[in-house]
Amino acid sequence: MTFSVLVEVQLRPGISDPQGQTIEKALPTLGFDGVSDVRVGKSMRFEIDAADEAAARAQVDELCEKFLTNPVIEDALVTVESA
Amino acid sequence: MTFSVLVEVQLRPGISDPQGQTIEKALPTLGFDGVSDVRVGKSMRFEIDAADEAAARAQVDELCEKFLTNPVIEDALVTVESA
Repeated sequence: MTFSVLVEVQLRPGISDPQGQTIEKALPTLGFDGVSDVRVGKSMRFEIDAADEAAARAQVDELCEKFLTNPVIEDALVTVESA
Repeated sequence: MTFSVLVEVQLRPGISDPQGQTIEKALPTLGFDGVSDVRVGKSMRFEIDAADEAAARAQVDELCEKFLTNPVIEDALVTVESA
C-alpha cells in the first residue's frame, strides 16, 4: 500500500530561530501587527510504500531520526495517511 | 483573541524541486526504499491577534500573498486555530 506522508521539522523549543525573528521584526514595518512567536521550519511531503500504516510510520520515524532532522536541535511532527 | 497559525509553503505542482529530488535519489543508497514524490517546502508557525477567526484568516492570507510566499511558484496551506 502507498501512504502519503507529511513531515514538519521545527527547531526545538528554546533553540534560537533567527529566521523567525527576522520575519517577526519585519512585519510591523510592513503593516502587519499582532504577530508573535514566529518559528520557521521545513515541511516535506512524500509517498511511501509499506505493508500497513504502522510499518509506514515506523519507516518514517527512522527516516526522520537518521536523515531528515538533526535530533539535537530539531523535532519532527509526522502525519501518515493512506493515499 | 489570539490564534495559532500554521502556514505550509510548497512549490506548486509542476515546478521542479531539486531539494526533493536530491533526497529521493539519496534514500535508496541509505537503505530506504519505496519513497517517491518527495517535495520540500517551508513551514511557519506563529500567533496572531485578531477579532475573530475570519479576521485572522484574512490577515494571514494577505500576509502569505504579500510576504511569506512567492505566488508565482509557491502555494500556501493555512491552518488557523484558536490558541
